[in-house]
Amino acid sequence: MELHEIYQEMRDDMLLIEKELYQAIERSNSSLAEPALHLLKAGGKRLRPLFVLLSGCLGNYRLEHLKLVAVPLELIHMATLVHDDIIDDADLRRGQPTVRAKWDNQIALYTGDFILAQALQYISQLKEARVHQILSQALVQMGLGEIYQLRDFFNVNQHLRQYLQRIKRKTALLISVSCQLGGQVSQLPAHAVQKLYLFGYYAGMAFQITDDLLDLIGDRKTTGKPHGSDVRQGNITLPLIYALNQSESRSQVLPLIRQIQEITSSSPSRAESAHQLDHLTRRLIQIVKEAGGIQYAETLANRYLIKAKNALSSFPPSRERERLIHVADAIARRQY
Amino acid sequence: MELHEIYQEMRDDMLLIEKELYQAIERSNSSLAEPALHLLKAGGKRLRPLFVLLSGCLGNYRLEHLKLVAVPLELIHMATLVHDDIIDDADLRRGQPTVRAKWDNQIALYTGDFILAQALQYISQLKEARVHQILSQALVQMGLGEIYQLRDFFNVNQHLRQYLQRIKRKTALLISVSCQLGGQVSQLPAHAVQKLYLFGYYAGMAFQITDDLLDLIGDRKTTGKPHGSDVRQGNITLPLIYALNQSESRSQVLPLIRQIQEITSSSPSRAESAHQLDHLTRRLIQIVKEAGGIQYAETLANRYLIKAKNALSSFPPSRERERLIHVADAIARRQY
Repeated sequence: MELHEIYQEMRDDMLLIEKELYQAIERSNSSLAEPALHLLKAGGKRLRPLFVLLSGCLGNYRLEHLKLVAVPLELIHMATLVHDDIIDDADLRRGQPTVRAKWDNQIALYTGDFILAQALQYISQLKEARVHQILSQALVQMGLGEIYQLRDFFNVNQHLRQYLQRIKRKTALLISVSCQLGGQVSQLPAHAVQKLYLFGYYAGMAFQITDDLLDLIGDRKTTGKPHGSDVRQGNITLPLIYALNQSESRSQVLPLIRQIQEITSSSPSRAESAHQLDHLTRRLIQIVKEAGGIQYAETLANRYLIKAKNALSSFPPSRERERLIHVADAIARRQY
Repeated sequence: MELHEIYQEMRDDMLLIEKELYQAIERSNSSLAEPALHLLKAGGKRLRPLFVLLSGCLGNYRLEHLKLVAVPLELIHMATLVHDDIIDDADLRRGQPTVRAKWDNQIALYTGDFILAQALQYISQLKEARVHQILSQALVQMGLGEIYQLRDFFNVNQHLRQYLQRIKRKTALLISVSCQLGGQVSQLPAHAVQKLYLFGYYAGMAFQITDDLLDLIGDRKTTGKPHGSDVRQGNITLPLIYALNQSESRSQVLPLIRQIQEITSSSPSRAESAHQLDHLTRRLIQIVKEAGGIQYAETLANRYLIKAKNALSSFPPSRERERLIHVADAIARRQY
């Protein structure tokens, strides 16, 4: 089973979700919703809705109910992207100019607020109080994650635990909630919903570790950004933390990160410094590779992937269960 | 009845709300919640909780239920303040440095997101789906209001209607929802809840018009900011719109606003330009006064106040009803 086959099988229902996403944004006033629409049109894998629907397939699948969580979860994801792009000074996302680049930071700030409000209005159609509780708790944790991320920018003394906590809040949480709520509204029993939550959590962790690997060694044509964009923004990811934890590589990695920090915090856009940054990150990635940081991250992503699969072992074997596992596999093993 | 007497009468319950506000912020992790706590400690009138409780007094008053809307409504208000201060480049609020000034814009962005998430988690304790719908609709409208405000910055051709629509979304809506939800959770019948909504809407309109007047002619010791701070940020308020609509004063007002815009958009912090800005705004306010803009705004605020009182006329006379009217009176007639 390939990822595109799964999308194909879910095609009609995913199209309906897509239509609903547009309606949720356009409902208010199309001229003001322009930046939000721009973001929507830039596309994306719509992973969260996909996980909601695929999880729903394990229970009493009712699209009319599932869409009430799938649409707001994708909107929440979009809202966080717009705000994150402000923090990261990011100009491109999915090959398109970001909202802050095409308009400005102010518009981007309010666009994020606006999309989040639309998400809440959409989900308010759901009567189950439990769903609101799960979602709002996730939002609080995601909010904390954002603040933690700022605190850990260019922190070369962070522990692996801090990284894992951060990517949990940044990515794994919303994916786990997608699976959890997909099961919840499909009337699965509590223990099965809990297993789906765990599956989503592990799959999300594997996904983000892979994402962080792609930033270092991925195909630049696919990622659409220069290698080491994360560290240039101060985001110290798993392979770097691994290299920082070995005394031999630490002494080489440390000055490189400091130099990158100096350049990015002083003159972020000069052509000369761009050249210098490319050189420094290339050197950094080389050392991280030699220290075994890439391999370590790959191993950890794999361990999470296995845990994800195991979380579903109590479900009877079925095409529905296999689809979930395949999606986790596909997003955690993306080519680089 | 004076405002402080009303606060005195509600003292115990308002203190409980205050305690809950702190708990909602501190619950997560005190070191990360620091910027949010800073904002909370800066104080404020806690108008929205006050309106919730006073509205609740007209029905079956149950503090345990009322706090579930009073606390999140104040948190939502706080979250919008933090984001607005980013847009306005504001350094002071209530005489205290703003979050963006004490920390930075990035922290402020995520602090706003974080406080909003806490609000949603708090309100998720309420089971009534209707409350969630009312609140999320208000959030969408407020979000639109923020975007409209950006669009109308330094727009000298805006109609009075645009201004009214803007302050409705910026201020009146959350106050009207405070009164509405206070009535709703106190089991008042639908028509009474609707009257409370109207009361809050009119009171909120009068409140914001008065706020905009204070910006022009208020006691600077009380407001803690220079006269004409609004127009320096591009916010064209009612008295200015009135003066712009008269052909004689328009020709004088127009070049002054353009000069203010030029200075603020080029070199916002130089001492020389600060002096020049003071001079220009003094001149501008003088012309607006002579054109009758101040008087017009006062008259309109008064008209809204009368409408607010009338909205409560179907409630039997009572101390509870009078308290609501007095609060509206007090906030719309603040000294300047």
